[in-house]
Amino acid sequence: MLRFITAGESHGLGITAILDGMPAGVEVSDEELSFELSRRRKGYGRGKRANIEDDQVMITSGVSDGKTTGAPICVVIPNKDHVNWKGRYVPILAPRPGHADFAGMVKYGFDDCRPVAERASARETAGRVACGYFAKKLLEKEGIKVLSWVVQIGPISAELPPADKRMLSEREAERLFELAEASEVRCPDFAASERMKNLIDEAREKGDTLGGVFEVAVLNAPPGLGSYVQWDRRLDARLAAAVMSIQGIKGLEFGMGFKLSEVPGSKAHDPISIPNRPSNRAGGIEGGMSNGEIIFIRAAMKPIPTLQTPLSSVNVKTKEECRAHAERSDVCAVGSAAVVAESMVALVVADALLEVRGGDRW
Amino acid sequence: MLRFITAGESHGLGITAILDGMPAGVEVSDEELSFELSRRRKGYGRGKRANIEDDQVMITSGVSDGKTTGAPICVVIPNKDHVNWKGRYVPILAPRPGHADFAGMVKYGFDDCRPVAERASARETAGRVACGYFAKKLLEKEGIKVLSWVVQIGPISAELPPADKRMLSEREAERLFELAEASEVRCPDFAASERMKNLIDEAREKGDTLGGVFEVAVLNAPPGLGSYVQWDRRLDARLAAAVMSIQGIKGLEFGMGFKLSEVPGSKAHDPISIPNRPSNRAGGIEGGMSNGEIIFIRAAMKPIPTLQTPLSSVNVKTKEECRAHAERSDVCAVGSAAVVAESMVALVVADALLEVRGGDRW
Amino acid sequence: MLRFITAGESHGLGITAILDGMPAGVEVSDEELSFELSRRRKGYGRGKRANIEDDQVMITSGVSDGKTTGAPICVVIPNKDHVNWKGRYVPILAPRPGHADFAGMVKYGFDDCRPVAERASARETAGRVACGYFAKKLLEKEGIKVLSWVVQIGPISAELPPADKRMLSEREAERLFELAEASEVRCPDFAASERMKNLIDEAREKGDTLGGVFEVAVLNAPPGLGSYVQWDRRLDARLAAAVMSIQGIKGLEFGMGFKLSEVPGSKAHDPISIPNRPSNRAGGIEGGMSNGEIIFIRAAMKPIPTLQTPLSSVNVKTKEECRAHAERSDVCAVGSAAVVAESMVALVVADALLEVRGGDRW
Amino acid sequence: MLRFITAGESHGLGITAILDGMPAGVEVSDEELSFELSRRRKGYGRGKRANIEDDQVMITSGVSDGKTTGAPICVVIPNKDHVNWKGRYVPILAPRPGHADFAGMVKYGFDDCRPVAERASARETAGRVACGYFAKKLLEKEGIKVLSWVVQIGPISAELPPADKRMLSEREAERLFELAEASEVRCPDFAASERMKNLIDEAREKGDTLGGVFEVAVLNAPPGLGSYVQWDRRLDARLAAAVMSIQGIKGLEFGMGFKLSEVPGSKAHDPISIPNRPSNRAGGIEGGMSNGEIIFIRAAMKPIPTLQTPLSSVNVKTKEECRAHAERSDVCAVGSAAVVAESMVALVVADALLEVRGGDRW
Repeated sequence: MLRFITAGESHGLGITAILDGMPAGVEVSDEELSFELSRRRKGYGRGKRANIEDDQVMITSGVSDGKTTGAPICVVIPNKDHVNWKGRYVPILAPRPGHADFAGMVKYGFDDCRPVAERASARETAGRVACGYFAKKLLEKEGIKVLSWVVQIGPISAELPPADKRMLSEREAERLFELAEASEVRCPDFAASERMKNLIDEAREKGDTLGGVFEVAVLNAPPGLGSYVQWDRRLDARLAAAVMSIQGIKGLEFGMGFKLSEVPGSKAHDPISIPNRPSNRAGGIEGGMSNGEIIFIRAAMKPIPTLQTPLSSVNVKTKEECRAHAERSDVCAVGSAAVVAESMVALVVADALLEVRGGDRW
Repeated sequence: MLRFITAGESHGLGITAILDGMPAGVEVSDEELSFELSRRRKGYGRGKRANIEDDQVMITSGVSDGKTTGAPICVVIPNKDHVNWKGRYVPILAPRPGHADFAGMVKYGFDDCRPVAERASARETAGRVACGYFAKKLLEKEGIKVLSWVVQIGPISAELPPADKRMLSEREAERLFELAEASEVRCPDFAASERMKNLIDEAREKGDTLGGVFEVAVLNAPPGLGSYVQWDRRLDARLAAAVMSIQGIKGLEFGMGFKLSEVPGSKAHDPISIPNRPSNRAGGIEGGMSNGEIIFIRAAMKPIPTLQTPLSSVNVKTKEECRAHAERSDVCAVGSAAVVAESMVALVVADALLEVRGGDRW
Repeated sequence: MLRFITAGESHGLGITAILDGMPAGVEVSDEELSFELSRRRKGYGRGKRANIEDDQVMITSGVSDGKTTGAPICVVIPNKDHVNWKGRYVPILAPRPGHADFAGMVKYGFDDCRPVAERASARETAGRVACGYFAKKLLEKEGIKVLSWVVQIGPISAELPPADKRMLSEREAERLFELAEASEVRCPDFAASERMKNLIDEAREKGDTLGGVFEVAVLNAPPGLGSYVQWDRRLDARLAAAVMSIQGIKGLEFGMGFKLSEVPGSKAHDPISIPNRPSNRAGGIEGGMSNGEIIFIRAAMKPIPTLQTPLSSVNVKTKEECRAHAERSDVCAVGSAAVVAESMVALVVADALLEVRGGDRW
Repeated sequence: MLRFITAGESHGLGITAILDGMPAGVEVSDEELSFELSRRRKGYGRGKRANIEDDQVMITSGVSDGKTTGAPICVVIPNKDHVNWKGRYVPILAPRPGHADFAGMVKYGFDDCRPVAERASARETAGRVACGYFAKKLLEKEGIKVLSWVVQIGPISAELPPADKRMLSEREAERLFELAEASEVRCPDFAASERMKNLIDEAREKGDTLGGVFEVAVLNAPPGLGSYVQWDRRLDARLAAAVMSIQGIKGLEFGMGFKLSEVPGSKAHDPISIPNRPSNRAGGIEGGMSNGEIIFIRAAMKPIPTLQTPLSSVNVKTKEECRAHAERSDVCAVGSAAVVAESMVALVVADALLEVRGGDRW
């Protein structure tokens, strides 16, 4: 069983993540891990924090001589910015619409929303990406890859090969991924990328924010990961939880997703043939299991809830209407969320693989 | 902790479900439970099985004198049809596209797909609805209701008040639910219902099947269910897993979902105001917690994968191309899936409520 | 992951157990399952219930054509005695010392202890033995056996080869098990068995009850089950929970257990040598893992808490001192508890084995 | 749900522990946490490591302004000794009898036992004690205390009031605890303490080690923690797992434990009377629940497996017989294990309390 847990606040000492259940013998490196973290951090639309965050990640346990040992892996991502916040306490009295602020304050009985904001922050996802790195390395040994790219920012959609094709060809998926990695917004369509960047600039000027849509593809997963036998063992259910748990995600679909609800069965399913199935509308999942095709997930992210031109809110002390709290934040983080989703997907797929293959060493 | 597990095959002795963790003191009745099960069973587009299934459900433990006792609740839904299948074994040699057949056979090492089909069948969801009934009764004591309705079958969409409005008004939600309960396809728009029924008739004639979209609304949930503090405690993640685990679901979204990815933050979030927030685009979830508004989920179901005019497949013994296996099945079960989703959502919300309030007696 | 859950009350319709996570392809039979259940039921000192319980056990799911299918296995053990209790409600107003009666009533808010007594009853363990049967069959395919025998009833101890020897030789363990199976109190020392039976007769005449000590041995478990890497993955921790969860168990030890605390390290540990280690004081567990030797657990059971000559108690309505509730019960059930312990141990070991080897088919 | 996980190796950068599920609003302090950790570290018989370990513990998340925030609490206990080990790799080729060395190497596929020894080390328990501190603070708010003391080291037993009395009186328990805290071996009998220290000196001189027995008492726990309704919810099962998971523990019992197996029911159970029950032979647990009396656990620890005069072993490379690996280690750590057991018990009891009371804020 692969399980992980994160701790840490946005302006605290740092983020800590512990990954338990990794088999022994998987080769890993600090450099690769740092690179993975930088993939999450960067991107057009991310705040200045990105630069501040450029810190030394430390693997403090579970790895010896460049290989996992089977022991829990602890990763610490210190917060360079902490010194600037130490001793300061900036209360959040006007909860931000779209944020955990309000419900969190009520739930835990705080006087203001600061303690909520500190933990609910997406900075926590750095810990997830760290854990995801190890899962990816495990999958890599089986030839399994987890890739992502952005297909939409705000109203601007990338022009890409039709979804059916994106889902069908591993080569196409790898090509899109490579293009995405070269784009500041992680979008494989460079023309669209430019328009997305302009849109982000406009939003920044207005004090507004943007969301978007990204896709995650798992290549080369064997059939039979997950199971139909019990509701909570279904791979799609587990992937859905993992991706939906990322801050800002409001929708997700597998394969053709919502579109499948519009067509008759004769046009919705993927005929079975040898050597290859002609389509992958199901997105690689049938009956709650991987079916040997590309696992394909599309997810929608809402705009960042911290606006520099804030929405209306209510002061929790005075109960008077006011503008919501504003502080330094990103304008758009869809590319980063896609990287986090890669990590979460990798963790779920690796866990399912361990169930099937057994999990001591690799 | 509320947990449940089901057992049973489609043509076996019956479905058994055990629900563990129900508090003591919740009033329940066999009649209400039977009624809940009938809500799942019925519907235009369901096969003849619906009538066969009209059986005696039995609560075999955990309830005494009309009240839960805190002990595990076991529900048995015997299969009247079992006698007709006893001793017969009809192998499935041509896996059905869209079904668990193929991957399941590979995974568990079977010679044909029958053992997969028996357990992967959506008949298993009768057990989930039984468990969901108890969760609903628990929620009812807190004034919390879980309602659902169908908004689309194949290409036909209901004409309903705009989504924002559906999500905002409890009265409107209750009205839609009541209309849905009176419709054979569980759609609150009666004109659309008629067209949907015609479409189902057409599909049946062609040996084809249909999917659709439904919505689930949770009324009166207090703020603070779920938590932002750890990824797997987020209410939306848990709800996503629960709904995605239902056979045939390929997409889901909270509130305005995918549409939120297209608009800027200034138009995506729900301003905070007293006494009421003017919108509920978030679908009642902020920061992975209920926020006091209606929790609103929309889910897409693909068409049933068993077609009377089957898709092409491959015979697992001869490896030759052939038509996929066909057997008695539904043409459309979106209304049933919506009822199952109600149950799954109720179970998740009740579990989250027990975490907050404590779980011995009610 | 092998998990199981039971439901059912002592005088209700029956006991139901669901075992989830069994691999496909394990051969099982109704006859063997019935035999396992009869091993729990019988024994000198058990009440008349033993005969009443001689009922048809039913596997209602998860098995096809004599083999497990990977689907959840549901076992139902109907209660023949139910008809005699139907409609009757015999309240328990005077909680029995040593029983769940008092704390359970307080916890769940009952007016009397009957609902507690119904579920807390050791009859529930029939469900565990049913699940354990399948785990044993899985282990059998790897040559792993789980055996038990009784070494003490009340003050009477069996004269057996010294504990070191019992723990060291598989042949000796099998011999003790066979002798135990032939004894009405499951004790391998026949002379002691006779004295134990006499003691049980005496206790019955006095309206008293008896406890005792039994041992469980796991033969042929490979090294490396469980893990030292995280506290809740240690095999001894998991075995301790499993055995301690059996009604009436108050103590347990691995290998020489408490005696190891009295001797210096030089006499406490088992030297490592090839081909065999000369001793097994550790009881087959080092560092929270199986080490390749016999896993050896000893457990102490307190006397049955229902006495025909009851202890003093307090009437929960009147708050007056009185005699505790008495009803039909066993005088001694140590042999039965040993069989339950075998089952629980088999379930834990099988789960640990699946973690290491992977769990789809066998 | 209160859950915790630890990471870190004996000679690595340090131990990290994350505790998830703590309610908000519990007052905590670095000083108290350091003090708790020092209680584990110290003791006659501990190695020089004790002094080296005297380091700065850091709470890196989950606490703000001296109060828990509901967010995961991360505690880091850096390893001062790390600099001395950095870059050095001292393989362990001769597995130590009684240690995880052998089975761990086989399990994870190492060439030598060093990676096993690093994680299997009891230094990991510092992380548990850190988590236990927070659980204790939570319990403190309900007036619940968890105390421990040592009753035996090697063959030397303390002369204490009889076990019945130790288990019955909260005042007596507090007195014993205070005496234990003043003893270098955590034994409330000072005369015995002196003899124990002499024994430890002797063992050290011989290159030998010692184990012993300790007791843990939980004062003022309300009735109804845990539950009889399902095997894995029983408080005694959960406590047994928690205590047995501590390195070196080989046996445990509740209340009179093994002695209860020797007496008839009429002398084994605790009569119920108002206002107090006259005895507590059950050790505060009936039917898998706390019953309102002192929860009382006794546990046996085997001697430390690292001997300076090593036992015989086999070189894993040459397969030749040799002396087992020796390195700096403790002679006796029973007092430390008792402190760890306090922590584990506190975590289990706090978790059970949260189930009953609900867990957001305190």
